[in-house]
Amino acid sequence: MRGEFETIARLYAPLAAGAPGAFGLRNDAAVVELAPGERSVVTLDAMVEGVHWLPADPPEAVARKLLRVNLSDLAAMGAVPRSYLLATCLGPSVGDAWLEGFVAGLAADQERYGVTLLGGDTTRTPGPTCLSLTALGAISEGPCLMRSTLKAGDGLYVSGTIGDGALGLDVLQDRIEGLAAADRDFLAERYRLPQPRTTLGPALLGLASACLDVSDGLVADASHLTEESGVDLEIEAAAVPLSAAVRAALGHRPDLLPRVLTGGDDYELLFGVAAGREGEVAALSARLALPLTRIGRAVPARAAEGGAVRVLDEAGRPLALETRGWTHF
Amino acid sequence: MRGEFETIARLYAPLAAGAPGAFGLRNDAAVVELAPGERSVVTLDAMVEGVHWLPADPPEAVARKLLRVNLSDLAAMGAVPRSYLLATCLGPSVGDAWLEGFVAGLAADQERYGVTLLGGDTTRTPGPTCLSLTALGAISEGPCLMRSTLKAGDGLYVSGTIGDGALGLDVLQDRIEGLAAADRDFLAERYRLPQPRTTLGPALLGLASACLDVSDGLVADASHLTEESGVDLEIEAAAVPLSAAVRAALGHRPDLLPRVLTGGDDYELLFGVAAGREGEVAALSARLALPLTRIGRAVPARAAEGGAVRVLDEAGRPLALETRGWTHF
Repeated sequence: MRGEFETIARLYAPLAAGAPGAFGLRNDAAVVELAPGERSVVTLDAMVEGVHWLPADPPEAVARKLLRVNLSDLAAMGAVPRSYLLATCLGPSVGDAWLEGFVAGLAADQERYGVTLLGGDTTRTPGPTCLSLTALGAISEGPCLMRSTLKAGDGLYVSGTIGDGALGLDVLQDRIEGLAAADRDFLAERYRLPQPRTTLGPALLGLASACLDVSDGLVADASHLTEESGVDLEIEAAAVPLSAAVRAALGHRPDLLPRVLTGGDDYELLFGVAAGREGEVAALSARLALPLTRIGRAVPARAAEGGAVRVLDEAGRPLALETRGWTHF
Repeated sequence: MRGEFETIARLYAPLAAGAPGAFGLRNDAAVVELAPGERSVVTLDAMVEGVHWLPADPPEAVARKLLRVNLSDLAAMGAVPRSYLLATCLGPSVGDAWLEGFVAGLAADQERYGVTLLGGDTTRTPGPTCLSLTALGAISEGPCLMRSTLKAGDGLYVSGTIGDGALGLDVLQDRIEGLAAADRDFLAERYRLPQPRTTLGPALLGLASACLDVSDGLVADASHLTEESGVDLEIEAAAVPLSAAVRAALGHRPDLLPRVLTGGDDYELLFGVAAGREGEVAALSARLALPLTRIGRAVPARAAEGGAVRVLDEAGRPLALETRGWTHF
């Protein structure tokens, strides 16, 4: 296998060509370039072989997922993605071919999202491969999108569709039967390749009253909003936007509904909008050609400590959900 | 063991209290605060259990080393350290006690170096623990310190002493006998706890013609300077500053000299200074109470491709060194 310095020079340096401050990855650190009036927004997500991706997954998809889950966090704050740093602790199974596929995945998404590699570190581990990526975005002076600013009376919206990622993992692990091949492929692809809402996030600045990305599961992430904002949320289960593939799965497995509502890996944006601004959301949805669906509303907290999420069926009765979402411990 | 969210709230959130843009670690990303006219400098280094630290090492020391190797990279660019993001992929051996020690180490060094946690990710791996840290520093508008700007005629300087880290690892792995206990302890401590030159780095802006930190070994890192700058370097072995402990080790094991000159983990700064400015280096050394030693000079490249490092003995003859330094592959 190539040595460390050759790997950096041959595989990674081309990914840094677009950032003058990366100095071709030949210095000890990189300078972050910003336009006047801009601030940096930073986030970091890690992924572990066998935990966050399956060993058989193509390395291109692993790279793209690693980048995209971070871009989703930037979007949740309203930041435009710009650059990233990468740490790869490579396990024994990783050879030149895997690494070339991994870098090809990064290159493809760099072009798609307009981001450039700034630096990082590459090392070896005798265990499973561990990857971490630090993404940097830019935002103008002024408030960013937050979790703590939701107000009672705000409508609750979500982008795209919910539950595809969770059922996609089920498909890849052969836990769902009877689905058409096209539906299986769609769901697996949604699990492998999140679509971070990098255009929506910045467009929500000044419109959304609060925002976060749905990565732990719709109900768990809604709970984060309520905990930070001190209001309750009422979500109408029937209003949650579902893909055709998820509808098909629920058609013969209605017991999967809790999994759809609490499974992770959606990477959609969940946000509040003040009453009276529904038309602006509809106009934004049309402009971005992206569904933005009202799924509920924030109400005053019933308990003194705030923070409840109630998922209601079509008769307005609370659904009992055994789990709220995914944690990593 | 504590869950993910409790770990973040109880252990990590206090480390983020000093940075308003970290939002108490309760958002998807953090905002980097800079004063007008400042730019961010970023770097990332990863460490793996059993590769970069020994399983018996105290978690406080692991945390501090992880932070400090990154602060050393910032210093090499002339940046003042400000904040960091942290990714922990924790192996099965890590429990609450280890993590509390790890966080205590971070807290101690946050105070020492004036840095604050901005964000990160915490997850689990079935293999060895993998850690990565992204450090952010600040630098004023204007040039930073680079590897590519060394000129023939410049003197070559190094801070502190060389070889302590490499022999410290040897001590910890019982490969050196006959050293006094105080010398053993000193060397082991230098391996476990690098002293990043965070005050020297920014002070070298406008004085050093080129700079990098010595992490792969003196000769290997000198080679990086020559490769990037297209000049040769002549290093006088007898001028390389050594601690009393390394001198003692060399006293009965002169065969260790190549290890001293090529071993890694020094985390000193290696820099060039134009002829005629020696007095400014001496004044800076006195002001910082830190040895800054002239160990050689840059000369025109002999080969067309440039890039040779010659280590000379006291008679001016090149020493033959079997290896130039440490790589991670």
